[in-house]
Amino acid sequence: MNNNPIGVFDSGIGGLTVTKEIVRQLPNESIIYLGDTARVPYGPRSKEAITKFALELTEFLLKRKVKCLVVACNTISATCLDEITKISPVPVLGVVEPAVKFALQKGQKIGVIGTTGTINSKAYEKKISEFNSKIKVISVACPLFVPIAEEGFGDHLATKLIVEHYLSELKDAKIDTLILGCTHYPLLSKSIQEVIGRVNLIDSAGPSALELEKLLQERSLLSENKNPTLEIFVTDAPGRVYEVASRFFGKELGDKIKKITL
Amino acid sequence: MNNNPIGVFDSGIGGLTVTKEIVRQLPNESIIYLGDTARVPYGPRSKEAITKFALELTEFLLKRKVKCLVVACNTISATCLDEITKISPVPVLGVVEPAVKFALQKGQKIGVIGTTGTINSKAYEKKISEFNSKIKVISVACPLFVPIAEEGFGDHLATKLIVEHYLSELKDAKIDTLILGCTHYPLLSKSIQEVIGRVNLIDSAGPSALELEKLLQERSLLSENKNPTLEIFVTDAPGRVYEVASRFFGKELGDKIKKITL
Repeated sequence: MNNNPIGVFDSGIGGLTVTKEIVRQLPNESIIYLGDTARVPYGPRSKEAITKFALELTEFLLKRKVKCLVVACNTISATCLDEITKISPVPVLGVVEPAVKFALQKGQKIGVIGTTGTINSKAYEKKISEFNSKIKVISVACPLFVPIAEEGFGDHLATKLIVEHYLSELKDAKIDTLILGCTHYPLLSKSIQEVIGRVNLIDSAGPSALELEKLLQERSLLSENKNPTLEIFVTDAPGRVYEVASRFFGKELGDKIKKITL
Repeated sequence: MNNNPIGVFDSGIGGLTVTKEIVRQLPNESIIYLGDTARVPYGPRSKEAITKFALELTEFLLKRKVKCLVVACNTISATCLDEITKISPVPVLGVVEPAVKFALQKGQKIGVIGTTGTINSKAYEKKISEFNSKIKVISVACPLFVPIAEEGFGDHLATKLIVEHYLSELKDAKIDTLILGCTHYPLLSKSIQEVIGRVNLIDSAGPSALELEKLLQERSLLSENKNPTLEIFVTDAPGRVYEVASRFFGKELGDKIKKITL
């Protein structure tokens, strides 16, 4: 039993889609969320920059006595989970492995889409081949999906054309399962499903929350707090952060969001 | 006469479109360019964050003994040119005023498009009304234009649909002149022109280079260096920076680009 908060972090506010699932799955847990909105997006940056920034976020949360860390960002999970785990005295959960495990229950011919950083890291291929080296994986970077999702263009005709552009190779390859390897992509799932056809879409939020529950249980870290808290910190707070964050969390966040400087 | 370099800076590599014009207009000038690729884009960030980052870029260039500063970024020019001028012992030129002066020679009913930061600042409206308070100005933020231009989607059908989405209000308003208030937008000028019709498109690069020449002349700062240098510094250098930078500069840059930490 441990009532300390869970630390969740992301390059921006996309990780709130994961946080939402954690709150649903583990309603007695307090959560501190940190989004690096002053330097988002990490997707197009180098491994060096992503690692440096991610370690700064990690240190901020460790100082606040979190009982575990959830890396609610595919780019960070794919790029430097080992580096984070190395400096963390508490358990660290990324979103790549939970999504991979779940995908392997669903299909045999797997596609992965993500940011340039995530795809360049080959983290999904490596993790899949750890579990089953015979599975064929095709990965495609979709750099425009994050800005399109943030702009609320999910249902726009332009989005469908852009989805067709990026997904044509995956469509030709006749995959049976597609991992949405970025916290923003579920906001485009309607267009993605229309373009890719009858393929299982795997989103990391649900599987990650389940994996987190298992981890806390195994280590006797579950909380029974009747009044858990949710604190959201961001490194920059222009007006639209409140609106986009609420869209991602699926609920008005308003004054829960506080601006800090790292 | 002064052979010290001109310092040019931008949130990323879009300012190379301005640099290209400076090189063309002032071939005897040495240039140090600094692009904050580790924290780009500035467009969606708060005034506070943009100002903090811009002053760090300013200090880096001032330490390198530049004879003047060119803020080759509309978001920074629009948000905190005064703050930069306040700490700079050398003259500072932004890209807003040169574009405004040029636009006022061309039309009477002016549209401005830019990033969210640029449009929220109302810098273009304020500058236009300083020159002529009777001119009507309509401004629209186009947050997807930067990622689309960086992804090389200039000629894609999706781009035309997105341009139509953002420009519909400007089209209805029957403007005669449109200021492309972001260094990336000239890469979309074909689609923009097709959508907006017979309207003057004003890009800040050319007018800013001309204004810079005038400024250097007035202050006796022009160089007659026969072997001027071009140095390009970036704060992060993932693989694609080289490719995108060369596309913006219109010429292979390759090993001219050096990575530094601020």
